[in-house]
Amino acid sequence: MKGIFITFEGGEACGKTTQLKLLQQYFKEKGTDALFVREPGGTALGESVRHLLLTNEDIQMCGKTELLLFMASRTELYEKTIKPALDAGRIVVADRYYDSTVAYQGSARGVMDMEDVLSLNLKFLDGLKPDLTVYLKIAPKEAFLRKENMPLDKMEREGLTFHQKVADGYDYMVQKHPDRFIVIDATQSIEDIHKQIVTAVEKLATKSQESEN
Amino acid sequence: MKGIFITFEGGEACGKTTQLKLLQQYFKEKGTDALFVREPGGTALGESVRHLLLTNEDIQMCGKTELLLFMASRTELYEKTIKPALDAGRIVVADRYYDSTVAYQGSARGVMDMEDVLSLNLKFLDGLKPDLTVYLKIAPKEAFLRKENMPLDKMEREGLTFHQKVADGYDYMVQKHPDRFIVIDATQSIEDIHKQIVTAVEKLATKSQESEN
Repeated sequence: MKGIFITFEGGEACGKTTQLKLLQQYFKEKGTDALFVREPGGTALGESVRHLLLTNEDIQMCGKTELLLFMASRTELYEKTIKPALDAGRIVVADRYYDSTVAYQGSARGVMDMEDVLSLNLKFLDGLKPDLTVYLKIAPKEAFLRKENMPLDKMEREGLTFHQKVADGYDYMVQKHPDRFIVIDATQSIEDIHKQIVTAVEKLATKSQESEN
Repeated sequence: MKGIFITFEGGEACGKTTQLKLLQQYFKEKGTDALFVREPGGTALGESVRHLLLTNEDIQMCGKTELLLFMASRTELYEKTIKPALDAGRIVVADRYYDSTVAYQGSARGVMDMEDVLSLNLKFLDGLKPDLTVYLKIAPKEAFLRKENMPLDKMEREGLTFHQKVADGYDYMVQKHPDRFIVIDATQSIEDIHKQIVTAVEKLATKSQESEN
């Protein structure tokens, strides 16, 4: 594929949304064409599934089912949106991707071995890995303080032990894929974090241009 | 598990619903405790997913996503309903199970190799296979004549080629699992079909009692 695929990862209240907005603005000001997608969701099917997973309070499901629904919404987003955009040479930035499922359903819920979650996801996503994954790292205890005045969805309301396991899952993935990950300390100032993200993205874009020439 | 697990399979308009009702009535008259479930659906989550898959006309999805959603609703039904009932020694009768996914998403949609669909399903369902699968076999051409005056869902409206591939998928499974399947000619009279189903179920129940003693 000709495009560049960037994913954003992190636990609750890591500042992901803020940073995605800043990066979007940065691309806009530079006149760089980039597509931003979020999951679960991003398609008509995905938004319905997102509702079941995160906001419908009447529906409780087991961990395996949760895993399959996240995979369903991701597969749909990949086939309908991400794949065509990358094929057309665009930059695609995803708010969460399969590392989230490894961390949340694999490590935290313990539904399945993390390696199994990973290979299962790759099976449905043409084996395609992101070119860059920005991981905004924050200690769950610290994140909990940030969340005090925020409205929370079903996943965000899980306890500290759950979110510690999420963090452990991310650490595992970083260790397994050091080339793809950039780990950023999410307790820094918004501006500092943004600068580090831009540096990483520019480096990737340059490398990608060089390999084209 | 101590219970008996029976699944019903077949293409569109094979008479599955009619036969399930007759079997339910038969058990009721005999005073036999049996739980009847249908998929996709059977749980709050499953009914929502069923709506997305079969009746929501605004939502079109790719084959891989469809496969994952059927698996999600099945996994939920298995964990919440089928597994506890079998553990309690009950008879469970399911209107469709993983053979449907092998036939519809594997064979007909061609999403994935049939063996892969099968092993993927078993991975989420504790590897548990039905004790008996009643396959009501009818040639798709014949079934199409029956459907002329029926209201049809998204799957039922697929063309003849699709439904021929569904039938091929079932034939494959029957050949692979001759012990578990009973194949019944669905063009026979309702009463004749019912009698053959009852005979198979009684034989299974006797065998199960013998192995307990």
